[in-house]
Amino acid sequence: MEVTFDDVARAHERIAEHARRTPVLTSATVDALTGARVHFKCENFQRMGAFKFRGAYNALAQLAPEERRRGVVAFSSGNHAQAVALAGRLLGIKALIVMPADAPRVKLEATRGYGAEVVIYEKGESREQVAAKLSREKGLTLIPPFDHPHIVAGQGTAAKELFEDAGPLDFLLVPCGGGGLLSGCALAAKHLAPGCRVVGVEPAAGDDANQSFRARALKSIPVPTTIADGARTTSLGKITFPLVLRYVDDMTTVEDHELLKSMFFLWERMKVVVEPTGALAACALLEKRIEARGLRVGVILSGGNVDLAWAAGKLLGR
Amino acid sequence: MEVTFDDVARAHERIAEHARRTPVLTSATVDALTGARVHFKCENFQRMGAFKFRGAYNALAQLAPEERRRGVVAFSSGNHAQAVALAGRLLGIKALIVMPADAPRVKLEATRGYGAEVVIYEKGESREQVAAKLSREKGLTLIPPFDHPHIVAGQGTAAKELFEDAGPLDFLLVPCGGGGLLSGCALAAKHLAPGCRVVGVEPAAGDDANQSFRARALKSIPVPTTIADGARTTSLGKITFPLVLRYVDDMTTVEDHELLKSMFFLWERMKVVVEPTGALAACALLEKRIEARGLRVGVILSGGNVDLAWAAGKLLGR
Repeated sequence: MEVTFDDVARAHERIAEHARRTPVLTSATVDALTGARVHFKCENFQRMGAFKFRGAYNALAQLAPEERRRGVVAFSSGNHAQAVALAGRLLGIKALIVMPADAPRVKLEATRGYGAEVVIYEKGESREQVAAKLSREKGLTLIPPFDHPHIVAGQGTAAKELFEDAGPLDFLLVPCGGGGLLSGCALAAKHLAPGCRVVGVEPAAGDDANQSFRARALKSIPVPTTIADGARTTSLGKITFPLVLRYVDDMTTVEDHELLKSMFFLWERMKVVVEPTGALAACALLEKRIEARGLRVGVILSGGNVDLAWAAGKLLGR
Repeated sequence: MEVTFDDVARAHERIAEHARRTPVLTSATVDALTGARVHFKCENFQRMGAFKFRGAYNALAQLAPEERRRGVVAFSSGNHAQAVALAGRLLGIKALIVMPADAPRVKLEATRGYGAEVVIYEKGESREQVAAKLSREKGLTLIPPFDHPHIVAGQGTAAKELFEDAGPLDFLLVPCGGGGLLSGCALAAKHLAPGCRVVGVEPAAGDDANQSFRARALKSIPVPTTIADGARTTSLGKITFPLVLRYVDDMTTVEDHELLKSMFFLWERMKVVVEPTGALAACALLEKRIEARGLRVGVILSGGNVDLAWAAGKLLGR
């Protein structure tokens, strides 16, 4: 399904009153290290702590009255859950979030805190079975985490704001899980600055999008083991893959140990709490996966929902 | 010595090209917890990681050509050291920073990294002796950490920006060490919004300014033991104390364990890395030292220079 810049622009109007226009930060230290002029779009400051709110709100706001009345369902143990929960609350749409029985307690509580009903599924069942059942019994609309044109258009508003606030960019680096943020930002970037080179960044252990991009065919991998929990996806989507092929110039990967180092660098030097997935694009820059010297670079810091105790343990090497 | 809003306005013009106009963040979570509409001025994103750059740059920029040529000296093991070092580098003024022999290695390196020469003094000597010697031998101008009209005027620009960006405020909460930030922000606030109530916040263990404020006489205490290392001051200054008496409406304190809790709350929920001293004002709000329900509140987050390993240890209870 086609997604265009007009869709991004309309999404932007739709979310304007509810999403936060997150700040764009610069860092003399990062500029000195890279030789570039780097602009960080801080989606860790977005509502519920990640860019996901943009897409979720844009999707829920476009439901028909009858769909709104019946409610929505989403499957996620991560940021998408909280995004759908919060968008639902703001729009008065009942949200059911299906989470695995072993989801972290803090995520369960955060999702409930945003007003959603959480449905736990057991190991024996599949997400699809639970989905079919809920959809059949309650007539709920499924809100997918990335593979939906309204989700993609919503995520693209992050890049639109970045270009509006930072001015022209030569490079745009974007974290990649299922490709919703990457494809939305890439299509927005190519519309606003056709010469801007867009690069998607995955954890090395979960490089399915890199594989698909190089093969020009949709590849799948087993669920990857990586600290970048927002990028533990097994493949791009039917909608995001063609958009990535069309609008993204290159893909790259970073190792988990590099990601951890970059994450703490962002905490310590830029004073921003970013989660591992949120640091993917910054890591590609800091680890010199691209040659940025003399260029204007945009980096999406996509989220900041990290368990501090986990991070403290990693920091102290435990 | 008198400091006026005109001094703040002129300081603002002077630093505009070099200091960062730091973002003002809001938090739905904080608003829900407090019943207020809270605006956080994020000076942790200021250059060198704290508001101190504003005052230091404003002071160094006003030195006479002959003073510039000879250079400056400052005594600090904290943010003032880095502020003077950076301002000196930007203005082409040689900076000597006098640090105790047991200053943290990371602070030494950061100060040298900003281009200053670090002079270590041994336990036997006093700061004053070292100062007198350096001033006599090298003709250096001493840049005090807070008790100077140019420093006060520079720090006041943080409040000026906050009012410009957040609009009218009913309350302004400001961390207090030697009172440079507090007095500068208070005089700016009272000029811009005479009805705004300004409250200074100290660590309970270092409550000299609270004592002085209540006695209306300048009190001194021994060097306090508190995690708020930027507020380990023993008294307000000859310049800051009268300004605090004139422009500040109230003073309050918070305990170290509350401060630590608030600091990590800001990290986890607002995704901003703030140092203990930087969280003082936020802590007074979160711990309900003021009744803010229904009001518009400004909070200065004054800095973010915290050792991550130290914080991780505190977080994990070690």
